Amino acid sequence: MQTAQKIAVVGSGLVGTLLAIYLKKLGHTVHVYDRSPDIRNVEFSGRSINLVMSKRGWKTLEDIGLDEEIRNIGIPVDKRGIHLQDGSYITQNYGKEGEAIFSLSRGILNRKMIDLAEKSGVKFFFNQKIWDVTLSSATLHVGETERGEWTEIKFDKVFGADGAFSRIRHRMQRQSMFDYSQEFMKIGYKELHIPANPDGTHKIDKNSLHIWPRGEFMLMGLSNLDGSFTCTLFMPFEGENSFEQLQDEKSLVAFFATYFPDTVAVIPDLVEDFFKNPTSYLVKMKCYPWTYKDKLALIGDAAHAIVPFYGQGMNAGFEDITILNDLIGQYGDDWQMIFTEYEKSRKPNADAIAELAERNFNEMSAKTADENFLLQKKIEKWFSDKYPEKWLPLYSRVTFSLQPYAEALAIGEYQNQIMQEVLKIENIAEIWDSQFVENKILDLIK
Amino acid sequence: MQTAQKIAVVGSGLVGTLLAIYLKKLGHTVHVYDRSPDIRNVEFSGRSINLVMSKRGWKTLEDIGLDEEIRNIGIPVDKRGIHLQDGSYITQNYGKEGEAIFSLSRGILNRKMIDLAEKSGVKFFFNQKIWDVTLSSATLHVGETERGEWTEIKFDKVFGADGAFSRIRHRMQRQSMFDYSQEFMKIGYKELHIPANPDGTHKIDKNSLHIWPRGEFMLMGLSNLDGSFTCTLFMPFEGENSFEQLQDEKSLVAFFATYFPDTVAVIPDLVEDFFKNPTSYLVKMKCYPWTYKDKLALIGDAAHAIVPFYGQGMNAGFEDITILNDLIGQYGDDWQMIFTEYEKSRKPNADAIAELAERNFNEMSAKTADENFLLQKKIEKWFSDKYPEKWLPLYSRVTFSLQPYAEALAIGEYQNQIMQEVLKIENIAEIWDSQFVENKILDLIK
Repeated sequence: MQTAQKIAVVGSGLVGTLLAIYLKKLGHTVHVYDRSPDIRNVEFSGRSINLVMSKRGWKTLEDIGLDEEIRNIGIPVDKRGIHLQDGSYITQNYGKEGEAIFSLSRGILNRKMIDLAEKSGVKFFFNQKIWDVTLSSATLHVGETERGEWTEIKFDKVFGADGAFSRIRHRMQRQSMFDYSQEFMKIGYKELHIPANPDGTHKIDKNSLHIWPRGEFMLMGLSNLDGSFTCTLFMPFEGENSFEQLQDEKSLVAFFATYFPDTVAVIPDLVEDFFKNPTSYLVKMKCYPWTYKDKLALIGDAAHAIVPFYGQGMNAGFEDITILNDLIGQYGDDWQMIFTEYEKSRKPNADAIAELAERNFNEMSAKTADENFLLQKKIEKWFSDKYPEKWLPLYSRVTFSLQPYAEALAIGEYQNQIMQEVLKIENIAEIWDSQFVENKILDLIK
Repeated sequence: MQTAQKIAVVGSGLVGTLLAIYLKKLGHTVHVYDRSPDIRNVEFSGRSINLVMSKRGWKTLEDIGLDEEIRNIGIPVDKRGIHLQDGSYITQNYGKEGEAIFSLSRGILNRKMIDLAEKSGVKFFFNQKIWDVTLSSATLHVGETERGEWTEIKFDKVFGADGAFSRIRHRMQRQSMFDYSQEFMKIGYKELHIPANPDGTHKIDKNSLHIWPRGEFMLMGLSNLDGSFTCTLFMPFEGENSFEQLQDEKSLVAFFATYFPDTVAVIPDLVEDFFKNPTSYLVKMKCYPWTYKDKLALIGDAAHAIVPFYGQGMNAGFEDITILNDLIGQYGDDWQMIFTEYEKSRKPNADAIAELAERNFNEMSAKTADENFLLQKKIEKWFSDKYPEKWLPLYSRVTFSLQPYAEALAIGEYQNQIMQEVLKIENIAEIWDSQFVENKILDLIK
């Protein structure tokens, strides 16, 4: 057991709230600060992308007994539903029979988790703007405005779970030897909406992650409990087929009619939503170190903000908690050791999922419409079903296993090289499930 | 001619001061702010590396008629003087007969340039701490402390020439779509010192850049006007042969006796200097964009901080001024166009010299002690002397030409591939200056 500490968690998002529950259960006094109002009392923003919970996220919830509560507010999604531009529709299973990711609305999940945290004894302080932190004494500086009066609140430990634009990290960044990078993507996104049928059912299959892959841009849809879908249009800010080209109703409607004809019937509020909802940015952020002595640690997006294309942002943040909790179990009151091992262990995996997530935009937006790629996936699945101990596809390693991301990335690259060889086989499209191909793969993976 | 503007230059370093002279000459009111005291009234810091001025820096000085003044306080350096560990000493010319870089003390140069700027009518405001800038109105916020009272000073334009840790950039960084990275090197540095002989002459050849290449670390020496040398020890912070290993007099003296035996006679104050002078960090910084509308531009290290191993940091900053001045000539009062073209034109070149500078640590610290590399340099020089229009070595492109850095980098890589082929020739060490090798190179560059 650890000696009880007074701990501040900055940020009441998903990772901050779940971390607070863990720390409370360990016997600490836990105060969560957030600069925004309580999300339970405000409208959702119109700029969110639905979340998907997969193995790593579930593991963190299971370990603290919250998985059932959360499973009730999610919808299992076991396949991609790919809407090709020629009007055809194909599906692609994500994993084996019974394996699924879960679609969750960010707002509903976040509200639920704050409820659970409060119930467990965590205290929340909303509308409290943290402008600075004194690293050496774990002291937060809170105030109305950046230039106004501040109050000091001293803790034993501070966790920065305050997202990609973390103020806590901001202070660390002004130290020597702090590596940092932020890069904004050329692709932005816009939230759109497929409403439920009058009887509350979903207009399209709720157990599929719907993609309309169009190369440089794509539309995506994930189901909600109320029968609706949260859709996300990912598209470059500038150039051909970009947000900058869609400035008026006419060009918008024409664009959707051309590229997403089957959505016209199911997105009735396209024009209203498109011009009401903001066009949002995507940022990649890396930094190191993540901790300051035994006083402070960054976690989740504050330590590693990635693009959303692998559905792993929240899962990676939750896995941070699992690792941290394991190290707490191992090292007890030696917080310096806990923090050092935490950042050393997590950093390479955070870098790996950042890389995988960025690559996956191309997979989703372009390759899912590519015959060779679909064939590759089919062969991998067929071979993996025959030899599950010899071949686990990369997506499954990332999504349905707890293998460290860095290992998954490395093995995925090795497997991909093998598949590129296999795809060179003459008539592979005809003979892909033959003994010959099976032997060839067995030979290559020796 | 441009309409006169009220312009603030933040930073009284080399780039800020020279930019101020240019802007003053164009008819603007120019105020230079610096958070530090006037460098003319303070001791040097004991943490500086001597500067080398090369073609690009001279060009910027020549265009405004200041080159002669500066040449008088520099010492031409036309070769590397390489001190091998076995006690042997070899030299390597930097360029053709008559080509040299100039060794300059940062303090002496900076003081001189502030004098010149004041003479031209630029006003300096020292000990003025800029904490923030309002981008949209080019307003500086100045005050004693970050949390204390601030005064607003409004300008028409602001230039951020405030170095790698620029406060001006700091504000831009908090905007969407601002890409930024900072990375600290694993290698630090320490200033050391070879004093003059009693008669004021130099103890070792003043026209050589002295290197003691030892693989992972190196010592470097550049001459000063007063007969002394400013030396710099570059070494990893941690590991074998690192700063962390040299904690006491005994280990320091033993280390120098082992690795730099010929310095023992010429660095009498080794122990005192080593423990008095700080161990300094090296940081690489990249960002984009560099400008905000027609209001603000970053320049020099504030826009692109690089490592010092190509001697191009100051030269690249001065070249920023040349390009900016060319664009001012071209676009007159259209500052928005000037700034946009400036950042578009300079960014790829800043990235290229960052890359070249980083690679050059390995060249200086390891390759200069490598026979193959010395042979390659010899072949390149021999061929280049014969066919100057066909082959200009990379170092010469960077140092003695005005070719954009990005082009130099690209051609350098192409040339290096050719040289790797040439080095594979049997007995190349014996026949390197033969007709056969000449024909081979002529063949490869076709």
